[in-house]
Amino acid sequence: MSSYDVIVVGGGISGLTAAYEMNKKGYDVLVLEAQERVGGRVHTMRVDGKNIDVGGQWVGPTQHNILKLLEELKIGTYKQHIDGHSLFFLGYEPSSVRSLKYSGIIPNVSWMSLVDLQLAIWDIEKKCESISVDEPWECENAKEYDAMTVATYIERKFWTEEAKSQFSGCVEMVFAVDAAEISFLFFLYTIKCAGGIHAMINTVGGAQDSKIKRGAQHVPKVLAKKLAGRVKLNSPVAKIDQSFKLDRERVLVTTRSGDVYACKKVIVAVPPTLSTRIQYDPPLPGIRDQLCQRMPMACVTKMTVLFKSYWWRERGYSGFFGNLTEIDDSYPVKAGYDLTEHPGIVGFILGSKCRYWGLKSLEERRDAILAQFAKMFNVSLSYVTSQMTHYVEKDWTQVEFNRGAYMSIASPGAMTSCGFVLKEPIQNIHFAGTETATEWPGYMNGAVQAGRRAADEIDCALSSDA
Amino acid sequence: MSSYDVIVVGGGISGLTAAYEMNKKGYDVLVLEAQERVGGRVHTMRVDGKNIDVGGQWVGPTQHNILKLLEELKIGTYKQHIDGHSLFFLGYEPSSVRSLKYSGIIPNVSWMSLVDLQLAIWDIEKKCESISVDEPWECENAKEYDAMTVATYIERKFWTEEAKSQFSGCVEMVFAVDAAEISFLFFLYTIKCAGGIHAMINTVGGAQDSKIKRGAQHVPKVLAKKLAGRVKLNSPVAKIDQSFKLDRERVLVTTRSGDVYACKKVIVAVPPTLSTRIQYDPPLPGIRDQLCQRMPMACVTKMTVLFKSYWWRERGYSGFFGNLTEIDDSYPVKAGYDLTEHPGIVGFILGSKCRYWGLKSLEERRDAILAQFAKMFNVSLSYVTSQMTHYVEKDWTQVEFNRGAYMSIASPGAMTSCGFVLKEPIQNIHFAGTETATEWPGYMNGAVQAGRRAADEIDCALSSDA
Repeated sequence: MSSYDVIVVGGGISGLTAAYEMNKKGYDVLVLEAQERVGGRVHTMRVDGKNIDVGGQWVGPTQHNILKLLEELKIGTYKQHIDGHSLFFLGYEPSSVRSLKYSGIIPNVSWMSLVDLQLAIWDIEKKCESISVDEPWECENAKEYDAMTVATYIERKFWTEEAKSQFSGCVEMVFAVDAAEISFLFFLYTIKCAGGIHAMINTVGGAQDSKIKRGAQHVPKVLAKKLAGRVKLNSPVAKIDQSFKLDRERVLVTTRSGDVYACKKVIVAVPPTLSTRIQYDPPLPGIRDQLCQRMPMACVTKMTVLFKSYWWRERGYSGFFGNLTEIDDSYPVKAGYDLTEHPGIVGFILGSKCRYWGLKSLEERRDAILAQFAKMFNVSLSYVTSQMTHYVEKDWTQVEFNRGAYMSIASPGAMTSCGFVLKEPIQNIHFAGTETATEWPGYMNGAVQAGRRAADEIDCALSSDA
Repeated sequence: MSSYDVIVVGGGISGLTAAYEMNKKGYDVLVLEAQERVGGRVHTMRVDGKNIDVGGQWVGPTQHNILKLLEELKIGTYKQHIDGHSLFFLGYEPSSVRSLKYSGIIPNVSWMSLVDLQLAIWDIEKKCESISVDEPWECENAKEYDAMTVATYIERKFWTEEAKSQFSGCVEMVFAVDAAEISFLFFLYTIKCAGGIHAMINTVGGAQDSKIKRGAQHVPKVLAKKLAGRVKLNSPVAKIDQSFKLDRERVLVTTRSGDVYACKKVIVAVPPTLSTRIQYDPPLPGIRDQLCQRMPMACVTKMTVLFKSYWWRERGYSGFFGNLTEIDDSYPVKAGYDLTEHPGIVGFILGSKCRYWGLKSLEERRDAILAQFAKMFNVSLSYVTSQMTHYVEKDWTQVEFNRGAYMSIASPGAMTSCGFVLKEPIQNIHFAGTETATEWPGYMNGAVQAGRRAADEIDCALSSDA
């Protein structure tokens, strides 16, 4: 049986960062990755010779953890294209849908709505002030905020339908679930951890500022290369045994195919809900399992249409759009961006829309998306179709070892009654993954921060043992 | 490799009922139960020669499915003891807690609160009218109800603090989680499926009307006996393979210890969230996984104190109490009942209280509970302690193959966007379990109804194949 200092379960950015940091410090590490590739929720596909990110892709200027790693790994970035008119796509009835052009970051809506939006943003930022990123459940009104959904907040706070719809749309774009699903406390906490609403929703200077050269999966690939031979693919972990029945000092990690590895410490670097699908001996404490049951994965299909030309740029559009229509059987893409490095548009099918459209065929989704683009940019469907060269998509809910993206959310009531156990080590098991971060959880930045934190915990524990 | 018509995963009442029905029809069935006992969330422990139910225990007169089964199996029932004064235990500060005695089913609260409560009950029953038990997500306002928590409904609807606190307490007692966690649509749906609020909360004539002779686990034990040799204990299922790679006609079911069984059809009769911890090939559809991620198990530690005498009855008390105090570190038991067949009191530690007290030792819980009883019934702690002969408890969140009780709830947003897939068969996999019932889901009655429904589905499918 092979023996290691530390075994990392999950070869996403968080697990690989933890392994990379520990390897640098001289620990003997092994990463077990369930899938046939590294990267977790970051995945770059090669299509027509181009690198297409079908998972996480952006970094922003305040995301110091990922930026520092990129610098260290000598990986470059480039700016997301955003010049030109952006669009909001509106309308409750198929007959009345229309596009609203605007420039800059302030959408072209009524002054009433703008005031309504601004008052809510101030209110949220005010509420965020009282929240600590380490113990959000301790803030004043924590119980009250955790007992309501973001949808309830929106319903109460806004007085114009226009602002309500815009704000709901933003929540969906940022969290990849409907506002109905999210605890308002978790919402405030996540905003606090990202440094404010504008940092989250902005392109220039915000979370969508820049893309990674060669695609975001280049990061985990370089990390894996630096860990040469220490990353095993196609190795889903079935069991983590720290009962010490077989071995008095070692934790045993067994893969589904029956390989057994021994180690001193384990880092579980998978999302909370997926961490419950591993068998533990002894079973993990009830309160941790209850928490993980209340942190479901969000829901996204990310798609890219590659085109022959930048036909929308030629018409003055930036390629960015937000879709606020709520017509189930049309217009699946909630938000889209210019692909930037090649002619293409990247889009997100989110939340309940993702579930609805996930029941259709790829062809049905693609055709609905082309029709949406034609309608939004006011060109003919035959023109859009003739411009398309490739359609690429990934429905993250279908993948056994992801079961959703971008991140886990917290259902109402979870954080205040059991949130504090999320990253508490259990004997020799430590937890990483972007969900356990305090700086940009849910983003690549959070993955890096959490991986480093878990590596530090173990370094501390193993050094004091020695 | 052994081969069967149908394999049932999970030997709770639902799975065993399904197997029993199919066995009667001549199908060759096998039940694989993960634990060392049958019964699932029904568990009768022998303590001091007495049968103590540490899991589900009551049946009511409108629960026709379980009553019919009891009749068929010749299992008797007896009435829950409820004569005497009931108690509400109140107070927000340790110094001001007090008991409020009342008789009958109407608590001794102010007229204002009673009116407030009654208006809410009428409002809820009115709202339930529009709900179909088969398609609750189709009702008018379904999206609105599903976007809010029950806590939000309570906050909006009630105008007296007293009624608010009483109603919240009732929600916790019935659902075993805080009102903050439950989708209001799921709440209405569950009430509808139970035939109304009074049917759920009443003892006489309601869901707590009667207990089962020899304990509730006698039911699954008799079912297992009738299935002689067709129930394998200690057989957690690791994988269900319907990829037909190995066998062109058969589904393969593999246990954790590596035993492989073949069958035509599988019934998965475990709670939704636990069903995701089994590996499926091909993986189940994303939308089903997303739903299961949003149906966490509720949270309960059930305890019984056995006493030398019925000392509370001697003082005129029924033994029933509801605890509306909200002091984290005292008074853990939310609701209690007379054990009835022997001198004892049965109590429930629920929701966030269950998680909080789950971090303490058994002795700390027991001592806090004895102190609560002394305070509530106005007797000395030394007297209560001297009367105690045994303390028995089960924290259902700690058990690997339960991970909570009484039932799964639905988090906000889940039912309207993916609820419809809950009991949809996937190729040769069918679903049972009380959560998939339309009559008393979450109760033994629901388990029986769902088991029969799954057996019928398969009988239909296999007969039409033949």
